[in-house]
Amino acid sequence: MCELLGMSANVPTDIVFSFTGLVERGGNTGPHRDGWGITFYEGKGCRTFKDPDPSCHSEIAKLVMSYPIKSCAVISHIRQANRGGIALENTHPFIREFWGRNITFAHNGQLSNYKELELNDFHPIGKTDSEIAFCWIMGKLREKYPERPKSWPAVFRYIARLCKQLNKLGVFNALISDGVYLLAFCSNNLHWITRRAPFGEANLIDKEMSVNFSEVTTDKDVVTVIATRPLTDNEQWTQLQANEWKLFKLGEVI
Amino acid sequence: MCELLGMSANVPTDIVFSFTGLVERGGNTGPHRDGWGITFYEGKGCRTFKDPDPSCHSEIAKLVMSYPIKSCAVISHIRQANRGGIALENTHPFIREFWGRNITFAHNGQLSNYKELELNDFHPIGKTDSEIAFCWIMGKLREKYPERPKSWPAVFRYIARLCKQLNKLGVFNALISDGVYLLAFCSNNLHWITRRAPFGEANLIDKEMSVNFSEVTTDKDVVTVIATRPLTDNEQWTQLQANEWKLFKLGEVI
Repeated sequence: MCELLGMSANVPTDIVFSFTGLVERGGNTGPHRDGWGITFYEGKGCRTFKDPDPSCHSEIAKLVMSYPIKSCAVISHIRQANRGGIALENTHPFIREFWGRNITFAHNGQLSNYKELELNDFHPIGKTDSEIAFCWIMGKLREKYPERPKSWPAVFRYIARLCKQLNKLGVFNALISDGVYLLAFCSNNLHWITRRAPFGEANLIDKEMSVNFSEVTTDKDVVTVIATRPLTDNEQWTQLQANEWKLFKLGEVI
Repeated sequence: MCELLGMSANVPTDIVFSFTGLVERGGNTGPHRDGWGITFYEGKGCRTFKDPDPSCHSEIAKLVMSYPIKSCAVISHIRQANRGGIALENTHPFIREFWGRNITFAHNGQLSNYKELELNDFHPIGKTDSEIAFCWIMGKLREKYPERPKSWPAVFRYIARLCKQLNKLGVFNALISDGVYLLAFCSNNLHWITRRAPFGEANLIDKEMSVNFSEVTTDKDVVTVIATRPLTDNEQWTQLQANEWKLFKLGEVI
């Protein structure tokens, strides 16, 4: 299995605190040592750092922690391989372009019979069930939107319906974003929290580290963090139910 | 304008020496301070580091220089913006997936009338003429290859023909790779060198730095480096002619 981390915020925000907790689970406090990746959106562009090495020992993860990149939408993933060996091409997040937007996808879970998913224009580069499922989603979008979508929330609601279909094939917790919207789909394990004024202090579970968000935010900031398991032990995270999904934009549920 | 750097090698090789010369031109010895990027292939996967900041001051460029990633195919680019502002989405290389391969593209030059290029399934995320030209190439590939290509060298020969068409719209020096093959297309400025045994010493032009390749290679290594302008002052680089192209695989011209 794997663990997911996502962020949606109304101001460019760094995710160093949450990411620091996550990387510990990539070989230290958790068994997810088969690679990791993180995608930051900045405007319409995005950049991805990934590594097939365990996140807890990764030089690139150290850079991400020491050089805060501010973003309104982030997706990250640490991997414990099941389908597909340990290799860069099997490392999440996966990205495809669709109507001029980078669509980013990361998955936690395992699917059966995924080889029966019919693909059209989008093909997997690696060997994971996750990337095949993503290519299937993208192909379905291509079919449904031969013209540029007028409503992107409608695109994401359609993706949520496709996620429900995939969830019938096994365990399918997923985060999907275009840099504006972030969809969190829950199969069996996904939690989220929205931080807003008045901000307080938070303590990481996986590392001795605290942050007082009131010192690094303004009263207008709204920041939602989504994670497979809560990353802090003194805040109230909300658990998503099976087949439940939330669509976020600028930190708010829409 | 911009500058290009590419590498094709028969063993995973780090490009730190050449990249160190290139980044100097990104704001220090050259004016290309509007962003930079580098894509490393590792197996079928690839990872890209990019930054809209000048390469000579970039923390991420420092990481790339201090943490050698070994690869058989690399494409890098430093940017001096003409079409499209300074932004992550306008930063090369650009990548699209085609029949399960990551196709990476970087361009040096400037095109006119590029908005008349007809696009189909591939759309630009940023505002550069370069990305539009790349999307046009990808769309043409999609048309020509409705089935998975049987011969990838034939795909690249077709891309070279498309590059010749684009070259009629202005200046179009380009590097394109799928991680196995690397195409260098010359409009007016592109040089290359193949290093093989017996290896000697090389001195960078843009920084006081030398390397004795005989100390870091084996007799079987073949490494080709392609660059807009030669990066070393004591080796014989070959200049490509206008409309000339070379296709490389594992360091050799094929």
